[in-house]
Amino acid sequence: MSADNQQERLKTTGWVVGFIDGEGCFSVSLNKNPTTKLGWQVVPEFVVTQGEKSLQSLRDLQDFFKCGHLYVNRRYDNHRENVYRFCVRSLMDLRKKIIPFFQENLPRTEKKEDFRKLVQVVKIMEEGRHLEIEGLKVIATIATTMNRKKPSRFLASSETIR
Amino acid sequence: MSADNQQERLKTTGWVVGFIDGEGCFSVSLNKNPTTKLGWQVVPEFVVTQGEKSLQSLRDLQDFFKCGHLYVNRRYDNHRENVYRFCVRSLMDLRKKIIPFFQENLPRTEKKEDFRKLVQVVKIMEEGRHLEIEGLKVIATIATTMNRKKPSRFLASSETIR
Repeated sequence: MSADNQQERLKTTGWVVGFIDGEGCFSVSLNKNPTTKLGWQVVPEFVVTQGEKSLQSLRDLQDFFKCGHLYVNRRYDNHRENVYRFCVRSLMDLRKKIIPFFQENLPRTEKKEDFRKLVQVVKIMEEGRHLEIEGLKVIATIATTMNRKKPSRFLASSETIR
Repeated sequence: MSADNQQERLKTTGWVVGFIDGEGCFSVSLNKNPTTKLGWQVVPEFVVTQGEKSLQSLRDLQDFFKCGHLYVNRRYDNHRENVYRFCVRSLMDLRKKIIPFFQENLPRTEKKEDFRKLVQVVKIMEEGRHLEIEGLKVIATIATTMNRKKPSRFLASSETIR
């Protein structure tokens, strides 16, 4: 890599971290899903949202991480542009691409805490513990402390599961 | 500068751009102010807002740019943390520190357009044209296209000024 390319690469690495500190989101959802063993599916996710005019910045992230999908939330009210989401949900991509990058380049805002929680949840899933009720409870408890979420429907209903 | 420091500096440069692409705001306000010649004061501004838990990231920006002030918007509803604003309004600091940095390191999202408009406005102010009604109208027209702002009170009232 030439010195110029190397410099550009370092700036881009920094840019990705800063952009995620601003607009990124590490989250974990528990969704009702009757096809899973316990009836709940754990969905860890890395998401960045932008208006249509800044769509290119999401494509840049997709190129950078070499994974993830782009989704559009269309706006029909004529007042606002469409909103796009860059979204990585694949456990493999999170483990092999997203997590190693941010472990080497930690977010500098409070989002590093959500990142650490995502790492915890992915580890529990790797160990298969999300398929047991105790592991699922641990995940639900972690998830409720991320992104100022409300207590999950899973926790609200877990007494009856027990 | 050692190679490590140089690498860290490049990553930080990229981080600042990315963070501003996410959370930064380049804006221009026209405020009523009877002590100015035309009764309106032009306020160009560079602002970044964060919750209290990420206050350190704003201190990092202040250290990086060696200018600007931090302000707190206190929250008394017990539900949310206080919000902090890092804010550069000094025309000198904008001209000598903020603008040269972002000219060399352009934002990668649509915010580069707001940045370019801020540069235009600062140039008009340097030339003293904001002290004439025509220059003030040009600024007001530019300002209304930034940050999806509503038409400024100045434009709404400028017919009567004329």
